[in-house]
Amino acid sequence: MAAPVDFYFDFSSPYGYLAAQRIDALAARHGREVAWRPMLLGAVFKTTGAEPLVNVPLKREYAGRDLRRSARLLGVPFTLPPGFPFASVAACRAYYWLAERDPGRATELARALYRAAFAEGRDISGAEAVAEAAAGLGVERAALLDALQEPRVKERLRAEVEAAIERGVFGSPFVFVDGEPFWGHDRLDHVERWLETGGW
Amino acid sequence: MAAPVDFYFDFSSPYGYLAAQRIDALAARHGREVAWRPMLLGAVFKTTGAEPLVNVPLKREYAGRDLRRSARLLGVPFTLPPGFPFASVAACRAYYWLAERDPGRATELARALYRAAFAEGRDISGAEAVAEAAAGLGVERAALLDALQEPRVKERLRAEVEAAIERGVFGSPFVFVDGEPFWGHDRLDHVERWLETGGW
Repeated sequence: MAAPVDFYFDFSSPYGYLAAQRIDALAARHGREVAWRPMLLGAVFKTTGAEPLVNVPLKREYAGRDLRRSARLLGVPFTLPPGFPFASVAACRAYYWLAERDPGRATELARALYRAAFAEGRDISGAEAVAEAAAGLGVERAALLDALQEPRVKERLRAEVEAAIERGVFGSPFVFVDGEPFWGHDRLDHVERWLETGGW
Repeated sequence: MAAPVDFYFDFSSPYGYLAAQRIDALAARHGREVAWRPMLLGAVFKTTGAEPLVNVPLKREYAGRDLRRSARLLGVPFTLPPGFPFASVAACRAYYWLAERDPGRATELARALYRAAFAEGRDISGAEAVAEAAAGLGVERAALLDALQEPRVKERLRAEVEAAIERGVFGSPFVFVDGEPFWGHDRLDHVERWLETGGW
């Protein structure tokens, strides 16, 4: 099987959420799996000096409209959680900790967290909320809550974020197909075409 | 005939150039005309505090790649002119001056200027270069060069840019279909769907 498609995202990124609803089926149509790679956009923005969408007047209002409009077109539920944009460190740490044990379940956790945040409008920034989502997938709460405090787990996330930045990731979602970078939910049509044709 | 599609762009915007290659045919498929509305992104960015693409590390390199890739997919020539990003005040003034006399020819001038800049990689920032492009369409050079200095012409452009900002335009290209805003070359698929369906 060909190399997986790398799917970088921040759990706090609504366009990442939209892409997450499509990326697996899209890749599967071309015989590919998806490596889900949550990262921290805040750390990325420190490198690029970029402003979060919500800090830019006009753009912020437009983005709200564009997100709802895009979600309706895709037929997926969409809402902004109350504390948006929220801290996604706990969600990320939980993901990578679980990925070392059970990669498939880690991806399920990522899906569940995105759904909780942007389909159900729930606050997933805290460790308890992340543990609750994981518990729904059969992950022991106490073990997860302990893991979130482990230096090794924190270090793993730091390394992942650093590797993403070194690879050129500057936004969410961000996809690589055989090394070719694609930024944004609105590039999934190019991602699909690239998978289909091998490039143009 | 239904209201025209409003097409806002900066002559210095390469994504605006890509959109310009498609917007007329796209609108025509749905019985619409296009009102071309050049504006000055620099003035817009002063309002929003946004950074030009080329000032943001990582994003700049990606954008160059994405532009070439998008142009290849569309089958249109693409290059960045040497002085990019360039001042587009003269081009804008010439456009609105000509639009008062001959709207159809003003649109042709806009197409010619975009082609000169991003298909042929020529510097269109100066009054002379703009006058040369206009001369190719039968516009008298001296009349145009005089017009570029007229306070009334300068004021017209200021008013157009102000009106664009008040309408919520914060990037290039920016399209309105019956009041619905769409930002970016990558939203033309939504623009087309909106024209087709009247909204969703």
